[in-house]
Amino acid sequence: MKSFIYDIPTKVYFGPNQIEHNLSTELKKFGNKVLLVYGGGSIKKIGLYDKIISELKNSNIQVFELSGIEPNPRHTSVNKGAQICKQENIDVILAVGGGSVIDATKFMAAGRYYEGDTWDFLIGKAQITKALPIVTILTLSATGSEMDAGGVITNTQTKEKLGRIHPILRPKVSFLDPTNTYSVSKYQTACGSADILSHIIEVYFCTYNSMYMLDTFMEGLMKTVIKYAPIAITQPDNYEARANLMWASSWAINGLVAQDKTHAWSCHPIEHELSAFYDITHGLGLAILTPRWMKHVLSSNTVDKFYQFGVNVFDIDKNLDKMEVAKKSIEKLESFLFKDLNLSNNLSELNIDNSHFETMAERVTKDGPLKGFIDLSKNDIVEIYNACL
Amino acid sequence: MKSFIYDIPTKVYFGPNQIEHNLSTELKKFGNKVLLVYGGGSIKKIGLYDKIISELKNSNIQVFELSGIEPNPRHTSVNKGAQICKQENIDVILAVGGGSVIDATKFMAAGRYYEGDTWDFLIGKAQITKALPIVTILTLSATGSEMDAGGVITNTQTKEKLGRIHPILRPKVSFLDPTNTYSVSKYQTACGSADILSHIIEVYFCTYNSMYMLDTFMEGLMKTVIKYAPIAITQPDNYEARANLMWASSWAINGLVAQDKTHAWSCHPIEHELSAFYDITHGLGLAILTPRWMKHVLSSNTVDKFYQFGVNVFDIDKNLDKMEVAKKSIEKLESFLFKDLNLSNNLSELNIDNSHFETMAERVTKDGPLKGFIDLSKNDIVEIYNACL
Repeated sequence: MKSFIYDIPTKVYFGPNQIEHNLSTELKKFGNKVLLVYGGGSIKKIGLYDKIISELKNSNIQVFELSGIEPNPRHTSVNKGAQICKQENIDVILAVGGGSVIDATKFMAAGRYYEGDTWDFLIGKAQITKALPIVTILTLSATGSEMDAGGVITNTQTKEKLGRIHPILRPKVSFLDPTNTYSVSKYQTACGSADILSHIIEVYFCTYNSMYMLDTFMEGLMKTVIKYAPIAITQPDNYEARANLMWASSWAINGLVAQDKTHAWSCHPIEHELSAFYDITHGLGLAILTPRWMKHVLSSNTVDKFYQFGVNVFDIDKNLDKMEVAKKSIEKLESFLFKDLNLSNNLSELNIDNSHFETMAERVTKDGPLKGFIDLSKNDIVEIYNACL
Repeated sequence: MKSFIYDIPTKVYFGPNQIEHNLSTELKKFGNKVLLVYGGGSIKKIGLYDKIISELKNSNIQVFELSGIEPNPRHTSVNKGAQICKQENIDVILAVGGGSVIDATKFMAAGRYYEGDTWDFLIGKAQITKALPIVTILTLSATGSEMDAGGVITNTQTKEKLGRIHPILRPKVSFLDPTNTYSVSKYQTACGSADILSHIIEVYFCTYNSMYMLDTFMEGLMKTVIKYAPIAITQPDNYEARANLMWASSWAINGLVAQDKTHAWSCHPIEHELSAFYDITHGLGLAILTPRWMKHVLSSNTVDKFYQFGVNVFDIDKNLDKMEVAKKSIEKLESFLFKDLNLSNNLSELNIDNSHFETMAERVTKDGPLKGFIDLSKNDIVEIYNACL
């Protein structure tokens, strides 16, 4: 158990209709010129765009807009946003959307104070030192970007998908209205839920003695996703299901449960190469990879954590043999991902073959083995990719 | 499930030796004149006082001191602290101790900007509008005051123990070093653990549909206390046990798990009359009261929550009859409080008889029935007190 600093000051308005008055009040704390950033226009379909514009106009807030942020947001879009922030002397960015939109605004916010290409932040060529404040309105429960300090950006030219974390990128205020996710499709709900689950699994699985209290929180978050994702898929306007998924998405990755952990993540970097090469949905990639990764790392050395996972998350009989519980826990996870969530269970279905696996694994391990739950070499990663075919 | 605003900006340094450099850095954000507030001197015995003074002197911080804050802190002590803050133009208060010390500093901080008796805040005669910033170093895992926005003060003249909550009273920074609780006695560790458990029980038991995710967090917190309190009692310097209890104390009551709840607490107001009249330790009073309160409110209408509690917290066989699980859950709780924690299980042992029960119950219900999990009339409360003899 390591020492840590807990510092998660994001303020969250949770529930329907919270943007009324509160949105303007919060934005005005930072200034009067707002850059509204969103994606493909679904916020117009659900009427959210009109509500926001009306709320902002009524408060005499000056609104600039940038739409069309991609599902795997491009550094070119980030550059566009940063440019507007500079030109128009924006005071605060309002991100309306899911993790892609929010991630993109994080680097626009930092790009406001940087003269070069924002991609420089991702490759470590430039340091993040200052950023505009960000306010978010979440429309998809998945990445947790609404309450965390990181973001992931894609460069289609170099086929790279890279992430950076910095405390000043954490949104100041986020509006979490579960009804804004009622229109999220079955498929996107499934992918988002797989993403939330993966954020917890990446932290939960560790080989050293971690803080029991945080493990119980993670088990609770996983049970929440497993209980409510199928309900949200079959009953898209079930408030209880959408609310639980939404709040779980934030707490899975805002930093609390990971605070006494030291190991790096495994499936995310392996998946990032998949979406960088094939532009597949991040949550789907994670769903396909995670059980294969689990089978690859399960051994007598790691069985205890799988046993804990099986008993506490999937309620498997604690009196069974540990390895049996461990194997059953992976089966249960597969059943959840591929039956309950109805996600594709292999890469072949997505027309992905093994032609780039060597290159992708090479890139994951370019700085040495992936030091996660269990260290993974390039060959390990190729094996995991192959097991996904 | 109700809408809510989540806003818990307290920064926490968790782990050993975090005060080095960090304490001065954090205090200096607010100014250079610090009022150091503590209790009976245990912080000197464990060497913490010297470490703090050396850290502050090295940073040229001007230190004023107020010691002797009582276990149930008096409004007279609060007045003293407020007076020093005014006279010396204090910039920030540093509370070193458990909940009593921290609670007291909260009303000193508000009293700095009020000309009258600080007791006026507690009886609602004065509104809290402004307060000095508070930094805390926690030495007892119990009340959660290190991360919450409330405090409880005792007036021995009127035999009243009253609480108030205001967001500006929430500490800005708290230092949670589990090793600072190694010297806490078995008895105080037991009382503190009973207090933490009670904070969760007061919120967890509700009759309406609450957020499942937060219920899982509460179950995790309760399991944490039940697992580690007996270890901390038998192995006072077990870091894992002390760390889990410490972080659980903060999360039990900082506001997260209670956010979608509307009902008031039951056992705390009933206990406050007990400690106001007899000056008994708060956690002990709660331990004695809680199982009696549970037996009083258990019925076919409330059995579902007890069943959930029994299965998820005490791992009672879920296939048993619901009422049987419910009753067993109360037995398990009694066994934890009175055997594992070795706390007195009745008021008679503390030389308390029924002579003030009517008056105490009258005071609890002076504004009408206590609207908690189940509404309690004056007679209900007298019955619960009597069951504690």
